[in-house]
Amino acid sequence: MGGDAGPGIVVNALLKNIQRHTNVQFLVHGDEAVLAPLVARHPRLKDRCRVLHAPGRVSMDDKPSHVLRRGKDTSMWHAIDSVKKGDAQVAVSAGNTGALMAVSMFGLGIIDGISRPAIATIWPTLKGQTVVLDCGANVVATDEQLVDFAVMGEAFARAILGLEQPSVGLLNVGSEEQKGNDAVKSAAAILRGAGAGMNFHGFVEGDDITKGTVDVVVTDGFTGNIALKTAEGTAKLVGTYLRQALKRSLLGTIGAAIASGALNTLRRKLDPRASNGGIFLGLNGVVVKSHGGTDAAGFASAVDMAIDMAKADINARITTDRSRIAAAPAEAS
Amino acid sequence: MGGDAGPGIVVNALLKNIQRHTNVQFLVHGDEAVLAPLVARHPRLKDRCRVLHAPGRVSMDDKPSHVLRRGKDTSMWHAIDSVKKGDAQVAVSAGNTGALMAVSMFGLGIIDGISRPAIATIWPTLKGQTVVLDCGANVVATDEQLVDFAVMGEAFARAILGLEQPSVGLLNVGSEEQKGNDAVKSAAAILRGAGAGMNFHGFVEGDDITKGTVDVVVTDGFTGNIALKTAEGTAKLVGTYLRQALKRSLLGTIGAAIASGALNTLRRKLDPRASNGGIFLGLNGVVVKSHGGTDAAGFASAVDMAIDMAKADINARITTDRSRIAAAPAEAS
Repeated sequence: MGGDAGPGIVVNALLKNIQRHTNVQFLVHGDEAVLAPLVARHPRLKDRCRVLHAPGRVSMDDKPSHVLRRGKDTSMWHAIDSVKKGDAQVAVSAGNTGALMAVSMFGLGIIDGISRPAIATIWPTLKGQTVVLDCGANVVATDEQLVDFAVMGEAFARAILGLEQPSVGLLNVGSEEQKGNDAVKSAAAILRGAGAGMNFHGFVEGDDITKGTVDVVVTDGFTGNIALKTAEGTAKLVGTYLRQALKRSLLGTIGAAIASGALNTLRRKLDPRASNGGIFLGLNGVVVKSHGGTDAAGFASAVDMAIDMAKADINARITTDRSRIAAAPAEAS
Repeated sequence: MGGDAGPGIVVNALLKNIQRHTNVQFLVHGDEAVLAPLVARHPRLKDRCRVLHAPGRVSMDDKPSHVLRRGKDTSMWHAIDSVKKGDAQVAVSAGNTGALMAVSMFGLGIIDGISRPAIATIWPTLKGQTVVLDCGANVVATDEQLVDFAVMGEAFARAILGLEQPSVGLLNVGSEEQKGNDAVKSAAAILRGAGAGMNFHGFVEGDDITKGTVDVVVTDGFTGNIALKTAEGTAKLVGTYLRQALKRSLLGTIGAAIASGALNTLRRKLDPRASNGGIFLGLNGVVVKSHGGTDAAGFASAVDMAIDMAKADINARITTDRSRIAAAPAEAS
């Protein structure tokens, strides 16, 4: 029970989740002295939710290496350990992303055929939703790793977004074949060679993400993380400009008051809580990172996502798809 | 005279520029049969603007290598050539960015002490404006090239944005020292070692760009181009959401009508024409790339920027600053 989201938020989230998933049991790891009384306040949680004591907690500033060495008593470690032991099928945390990835990799290991895990996020687009990965699990990616990400993103989009044949694009500085660095050019050649097995669209550019040009956008974790945070910052900037513009004049203020319902709809649509934070793909177990600064609704929707993923069992598909592509000849670029 | 901006737009832009810069002469390169009658329509242009015939034009799809081999008769080539010969001090084009950079590098060469040129763009932020570079001149950057970009961005911010001691940040996936790939970590060590000569802030993240955390954000051209286009796409998405939200209800429509002045202010603030496209830094001559889909106001503001740069003569400063940093010991990371 770490992260910016306090225990109260998690308990309030579970009150929503127990209603939506009547056959799911919840294990809550953290300081029993804090958690037990919080849970006891809600009789509905009594049979659905078990508090498991973990004295330590991972702070937002802890280095992943520090947590790996000294974090065995933390709620984060216990949560991942419960997935490893099979006591739980999924883990959800609002804690330190880097530490959560390190503990998850150490505890669960990486699935067959994949060399590195990735963090996927779901972006709102003009057409609906697009999965973007890697958003920060790795700071560099080879061509083969980009192919891993493409396979994992496609499997996720099929299972969780319900798309039959999701289209996949590689993020680049132009859509022409000769553009880009060596890793993206080589990854594109491999994915083109994979043939009809994947609906590979080719290269896409930064503005294609929000256009919804493809269902899955693949990139290295350095670029993906910076694109994600740049987009968050831009949305915030536009929102601030809008408020400033409306406040500056009497007519603006009156118009905004009259249109407040519509403006609230916009605010909800841009709310990062709806986007669930990051989904860890490529591990032997489901781990979802909820947004740190979330509330009960946001944390509950991260839990929903994790439960959907556990039901879909996408890892077997990822291993099969990846080995099929590895066997196919890459197209000469 | 190439690019999406037709000759009519350029002539209308010059009508604005001749008023703002009474002592500047303009050379207009392109198809004389088209340009001469357009210019002749405006007697005010007669003594301020000379049409120089160039029969060829670079299309938006032409590969840079093709233009280098076969583009000597194009208006783009002639424009850069006029800077090379000293007939003009600056060149402005709304044409193909890749071709413009290739022709500029070939024609003008790179200034002493710098290994690669960069494309800088000016972003609106919560605090004002921030210079971001490289936005796409190169697809990879070494540590030393990132240092080049830092020096060029700082010199530009000082000369053109009028900042005495601009703060410089390196774009990364986290602000802690141990984060990031080898190139950014090593570049940070060099810039820290540069001492009081540069106001180096350290690492910044994607959302720091629009927050205005620093005056200059340095990154490789792959990441910078994707961040730029992701931000443009996000601003467009938010704008579309806003329109949809306001249209969906009667009160929203009425409110929007009343607040239309304020909403128009917002639209102008987000207008990409105000941001002038890209500024080419590191060349022996000033080249500014105007936005392709611009209008006369946008092209005129790109011309203004180019004239300001010619007056500031920032290249000597860049060479001095770069050699000072090259002589300083890098800080151990």
